[in-house]
Order: sequence, then structure tokens, then C-alpha cells
Amino acid sequence: MRKKIISARKFIKPSFSYLVEKKRDGGEFSDEEIRFIVDSILDEDMPKFQQAAFAMAVYFQGMSAQETAIFAEEMMLSGEVIDLTKISRPKIDKYSTGGVGDKTTLVLAPLAAACGVVMPTMNGVDEEYIISNLDKLSAIPGFNPVLDLKGFHKQLREVGCTFIQQDPEIAPVDTILYKMRQETGTIPSLPLITGSVLSRKLAEGAEGLVIDVKWGNGSFVKDVEQAKQLARSITRVGRSMKRRCVALVTDMNQPLGDTVGTALEIKEAIQLLKGEGPEDLRELVLKLGMEIVRLAGVAGSTLSAKQTVQRHLKDGSALQKFKDMIEAQGGDTS
Amino acid sequence: MRKKIISARKFIKPSFSYLVEKKRDGGEFSDEEIRFIVDSILDEDMPKFQQAAFAMAVYFQGMSAQETAIFAEEMMLSGEVIDLTKISRPKIDKYSTGGVGDKTTLVLAPLAAACGVVMPTMNGVDEEYIISNLDKLSAIPGFNPVLDLKGFHKQLREVGCTFIQQDPEIAPVDTILYKMRQETGTIPSLPLITGSVLSRKLAEGAEGLVIDVKWGNGSFVKDVEQAKQLARSITRVGRSMKRRCVALVTDMNQPLGDTVGTALEIKEAIQLLKGEGPEDLRELVLKLGMEIVRLAGVAGSTLSAKQTVQRHLKDGSALQKFKDMIEAQGGDTS
Repeated sequence: MRKKIISARKFIKPSFSYLVEKKRDGGEFSDEEIRFIVDSILDEDMPKFQQAAFAMAVYFQGMSAQETAIFAEEMMLSGEVIDLTKISRPKIDKYSTGGVGDKTTLVLAPLAAACGVVMPTMNGVDEEYIISNLDKLSAIPGFNPVLDLKGFHKQLREVGCTFIQQDPEIAPVDTILYKMRQETGTIPSLPLITGSVLSRKLAEGAEGLVIDVKWGNGSFVKDVEQAKQLARSITRVGRSMKRRCVALVTDMNQPLGDTVGTALEIKEAIQLLKGEGPEDLRELVLKLGMEIVRLAGVAGSTLSAKQTVQRHLKDGSALQKFKDMIEAQGGDTS
Repeated sequence: MRKKIISARKFIKPSFSYLVEKKRDGGEFSDEEIRFIVDSILDEDMPKFQQAAFAMAVYFQGMSAQETAIFAEEMMLSGEVIDLTKISRPKIDKYSTGGVGDKTTLVLAPLAAACGVVMPTMNGVDEEYIISNLDKLSAIPGFNPVLDLKGFHKQLREVGCTFIQQDPEIAPVDTILYKMRQETGTIPSLPLITGSVLSRKLAEGAEGLVIDVKWGNGSFVKDVEQAKQLARSITRVGRSMKRRCVALVTDMNQPLGDTVGTALEIKEAIQLLKGEGPEDLRELVLKLGMEIVRLAGVAGSTLSAKQTVQRHLKDGSALQKFKDMIEAQGGDTS
């Protein structure tokens, strides 16, 4: 799916400085104006310094839910949008703001796959500030973190989950903006984070999204209020984009689990996939797993969701999916 | 006078994104940090997009009087600072925020010179948005708006006033920043305007500065409160930089005088120099002229200031100075 063709209506191109001034003064952009900004960043028409002034103005003045939704959608449409409709199983993605010692996604993707839910996880640019799950998996000899779209499709169909680097064709405007934001103090802006997360995650082809917003010393979200706002912002905008969304706000003041470090965390993940491992992580995996199967429609009630998740941990099918995934990506599972 | 040598003290260079974040969060820069920013802009070390984020953060969070004074001083020291101490007469400069039909500086410079006050006026980059006084003087055949520093000195000594383009060596960092600010909605920031005006005007070698802040439809300052704030900001910071400063806040909701347009305005200026012309302008010229001679110490009391200014308008000496200046710069005075 390529960029939408916009009919040549009576939209008169504004100047970039007019747009920056409009946001500086707390104005609300029209859909056309946001589309114009995203297009201009993609086409390299909007200079980087005006992008920076725009981002800082958004930092101070915010964006409405409508603005944020259009912003996320236009950034998503700036690149490849993966179509997974040929895979009939429910497709749910997971986003976590990350944190020290967080290896839940490593566990959740195979667990979800075992429960019959496809999880098209790609490792995005916005997870650079911590040891990424891919870094952790690189501790496994032979593991290949790069798949082309065809290989991605194939593995999702056959295994049900992947751990790969995000395709550079996914939301290229977000990639450009994110890099600039890292150097201009404009990362911690709710609408900019929301737009970034949704443009990437929804481009990966999922129908629903489970969001884990972590707050505390180990996360870039420092307090619980901020975490709640971010969770609310992502779910609200995600729903307005017609995707099922659910968010959890979790405490990251302590590193999760007992281990921090690439190879050690893989070992801990394997323990968790056997239904063992540290209490705090086991609980978080259960909680998130339940949200995934409920959002996917695999389980109707809380009780049946809990039973489904626990069964696939106990019978070894989650661990088997993890091995299948590692093997499918060339890793040594011995 | 070249850039001050700063002793290599224990100042550890911060990253530009740290500095942007500090201002974004309302922090106050140390003198060293401001010096580092100005130096980095001059040396082209600080990328333009981070300058833009910095300017927008200052727009929203402001700067303290101390920060603004150091900012103005460092920008002034980023280039040539003209030394006029060999000219023994008092040296007073004038800054106006400009506006439609404003030709007071055209009148005040020769008037001040006639009263024995040297006025080293240069036409800065920040006056581009209106018809500049230089544009108006270009209506005179042969008039040369470019003087080198030697010629500038000579004319100030012999005539007492000039109308020339600002030397590109004056406050080069302000030139860089101003251009960026015009395209990023960061012109209307009190500390940034204050820094810009003072860095340029004080680099021209004046001991004192008379500021005319115009507000209303014909000016970029839209209301009287904003005008008062700007006047207060410039005088306060100017005084902290050890220069005599006085500011007037004047109404620009109506164009000044009867004429708008280059050649016509010159004619009106000549009328004013004869003590004739439209009432509103005659009054403004008298008021500003009085401030100039008082600030210069030429007149002690309000009454004697008024008498001094009126005498030089009536006896034709102000008009003669205008002719001398035009002739000195190659213009046809017939």
C-alpha cells in the first residue's frame, strides 16, 4: 500500500514559518496542514531547522487528539504499510516504553503465537536507548535479525512471531523526525510519542495493540501521572484509527527480574516460557498475555484468558514457539 | 577589538541537546554556557536545527536579565566592536522598532550632529521588514550607502552622523541567528530582540542609546503592554552593560506624517529639519531629540534640552548637517 492520492483540492500551501507560528500560538492544524508537513518532511522540502522549531512548538503547545491521529496516520502512510489480511489468525502487536531488564516481549511473542495470535514484532528506532531485544537475541549464535517482507510474511504464517529489525520502509518520516528529536530535547512530548508509536506499530499490520507504559527510574517516563497520560493518549488515538487498543501502566523503579545483560536475559526469558522465573516478571507476562488473548478474541473472559495463557506456558508450547522462531531465523537452539 | 580571550577554566563543554533541554525546562544558563552557545554558532559547531530548538525554547521560557545581558555582550563580542573613544564629543545611538512612515532617524541624526552629538547610525538587518532609511536615501542620485570603517570614522569626526549599511563584521552571530529566527517564528521573543538590538547598537561604539519602541498596526509590536516590556528589557539590560539608555513607547496605529514612500519621505524629512512638517512627527522629533541631548549631557534640564533642539531646527544648522552628510556620502544636494 503506497501513499494515498490526495485530490488536488483548494489547499493553498502555507509557508513552513506560518505553520510553526500557528502551533507556537496554540493553533490547531487542519488535516491538510498535517498532511502537508509530513509530505514536506518526506520530500525533504521542509528544512530540518524548521522541523526542530515545529517539534519544540508542539512540545510546549501540544496537539489535539484529532491532530495526533492524523499525524500518526500520515506518518504511517509515508512508507510501507504491511498487509497481513491473508493471515487469518488475529494479529496483535505489543509496544513497551522499555526499561532496564525488560524482557517481556521476548516471552510474549512466542507465548501469543502458541495461543494462536500472530505478533508481527519489529524492533523500532525508538528503542535504541536501552539494550534492545535484538541485542539480547544476538547472543544466540547464527541468529539473523534481518528479514525481507516476504520472509517476514512467511515466518508469521508458519511460526506466528518474529524478532527482526524494523524495515527502513516503515514510517520513514518518523525515522527522520525521531533522529532530530533526540538532539533537540523534543522526545518527551505526548503527541509526538503517540504519533511515533502508532505510525510504526500500525504499519506492521496488526489489528490491535497492547501497550505497556513503564514509569520510574528505569524508564524515560519518570512519574505515574505522565505514564497514565501517555497510555491514554496512545489508546485514544489508536482507537480513533480503528484499532483495538489496551494499555497497562507498570512500575519500573526496580529492574524487572533478576538479570540485566544480554545472554543472561535470554536465559531468564526461557525460564519464563517454562512458567518459571522471578515472581515480578511472571506476573507481568501473565497480565500482558491475558490482555493479548482477550484483545485477539481468543478468550472471552478474564478467567478463560488466564487459563489459556497458563496452559501454553505449562505444556511447553510457548517455549517450543520460541525455539521455532530462533530456528526460523537461523539461530542455534541447542 | 577582537573576541575576549577566555581563560581555559574548568568549563566542561555541554552537549547542545543538554543546553536545549535545560532551557526547555526553564533553567538559567551560566555565563559560560551562553558564551559557549555564541562561540559555537560563530564557529559553525552548533547545527542550525539545534539553534532553532534553542530559540523556540527561549521563546517559551524566556531568559533572565543576567542571561540576556551576557547573551547581548557575547554576540557583540562575536565581531567587530567599533572604538570611537578618539572622538571626544558624546556618542549617542538611536534604535527604533520601525513602522510605516517612520522617518525620524533621518531627521534625528543630523539634528543630533548639529547639537554636537555624534550619532553612528548603521542600518541593521533587523530593519528589513519595512522600507529602510537607506532605501529612502537611495532616492537621492549618487548617494553611497557603503562606507568602510575608516570612512565611517572620518565622517563621524567631520560631520557627526552617517547613514550606511551595517558592516558585516558587526555582531555576525546575531546575523546568523536573526536569519534563522525569521523562518522559525522566533522573532517576537523579548530576550532575543533585546540581545539582537544591543549587540548591534553597542558594537557601533555609542555610549548611550535612545530607544523608540513603536506599537500598533504599523509595527511588529501589537500592543502597548508588549511595547513597554520590550522598552524595559532593552533599557535594563543596556544599563547592566554600563551604557546610558532611555526608552520611549510611541503609538504607531497611524502612519507617521503625511507621506509613505521613499522620495516623498525624504522631502518630508527635509521639512522637519526646517522645523516645519506634520504636527505628529514634529512632536516626536522634538521628544526624541530632547532625550538625545539630555542623555549626551549637552543639556541638563528639560527646558534647556527643548531650547537646544528647537534652536538647531530654526537656525538651519540641522538641515545643513543633513546636506553635509549627503554630500560626504556622494549624494546630490541640489
